[in-house]
Amino acid sequence: MVCAGLARERGFRVAALTIDYNQRHRIELEAAKRIAQTIGAASHVILPLDLRLFGGSALTAAIDVPKDGLGEGIPVTYVPARNLVFLSLALAWAEAAGSSDLFIGVNALDYSGYPDCRPEFVSGFESLARVATKIGSEGGKVRVHAPLQHLKKSEIAREAARLGLDPGASWSCYDPLPGGLACGVCDSCRLRRAGFDEAGIEDGTQYGAPS
Amino acid sequence: MVCAGLARERGFRVAALTIDYNQRHRIELEAAKRIAQTIGAASHVILPLDLRLFGGSALTAAIDVPKDGLGEGIPVTYVPARNLVFLSLALAWAEAAGSSDLFIGVNALDYSGYPDCRPEFVSGFESLARVATKIGSEGGKVRVHAPLQHLKKSEIAREAARLGLDPGASWSCYDPLPGGLACGVCDSCRLRRAGFDEAGIEDGTQYGAPS
Repeated sequence: MVCAGLARERGFRVAALTIDYNQRHRIELEAAKRIAQTIGAASHVILPLDLRLFGGSALTAAIDVPKDGLGEGIPVTYVPARNLVFLSLALAWAEAAGSSDLFIGVNALDYSGYPDCRPEFVSGFESLARVATKIGSEGGKVRVHAPLQHLKKSEIAREAARLGLDPGASWSCYDPLPGGLACGVCDSCRLRRAGFDEAGIEDGTQYGAPS
Repeated sequence: MVCAGLARERGFRVAALTIDYNQRHRIELEAAKRIAQTIGAASHVILPLDLRLFGGSALTAAIDVPKDGLGEGIPVTYVPARNLVFLSLALAWAEAAGSSDLFIGVNALDYSGYPDCRPEFVSGFESLARVATKIGSEGGKVRVHAPLQHLKKSEIAREAARLGLDPGASWSCYDPLPGGLACGVCDSCRLRRAGFDEAGIEDGTQYGAPS
């Protein structure tokens, strides 16, 4: 949400892409629709791509989402090559539509250690995008913007407020409870709550467990 | 087909991935099923991914497939970032399944000038794959094999014969005619026919137009 808001603020016409990868937290697709509307996206595609056919992650297979706090190493909520798949699809759409600027909301500070959130992944993708495409191979620029990359979660929360965006419109939880509550104890909830606490900004999420 | 046959010959257990991208020549999905069986693939996933939602190509939009012979530049049959999307998905499956060797049948000699068939794309993807994934970031090797990359079409035809594979089981045409005939005059048919002619090997394809 904040990434899209920043793209809009920088003068871009936003075409929003959401992947319905049959994720455990498919409830985030509803948040994506709300956000695309709020942002005033020129278009919004929700692309079905059933990554459960591959599995291998707590978000796409029958593997429990950890609830005991952030640990060492790359957690089981890592979805194999997910952000590479997502950026590749964004690039495919961008090139088909005559655009060359991609925005992705990855963050490499308050994060779970996913390899595909790191700056070297983002810059490596940008280089490959120039080789992989018609626009790139004909000398056109492909840019991958990751404006949240070096921000703390608390700074992202402040950006949301500065941009006039409603934090409650966004969704972070990996393992939603019945009734549309966030679990409050998965890594994603913990990082989100800590960020809003530090920023002193109302989170807007309804949690099923106390912090 | 030949690429999968070579993977098998090199001792790999083949997991076959076919993307149903709502391509004009969806008839190739039937060929993929036959080939996966013939090759003795350990598994075969046909993954739906509707690239018509993006369009931008004669294979995924209402744009005519050229029939006048190979021209200059990148033709309208180029599908934006397609092989990047395909390899990313193959990598996602491979990592989820605990594998690290990808095979792709791209060819950079008798081809249509697609940027994502070139060696620099394949090697660039291999480098990025190591940054983008858990296996790669933990020091594991990800290898992208493109055994047809530097072969002429006639050599690929000979490899099919050498491996005991039936050329008629494969499909190349971009714009199939009613009744399951290949058009015979799109770039893909032209390259295929010329290759088999040069090799002096029976093609096995039923064409709707004389060569």
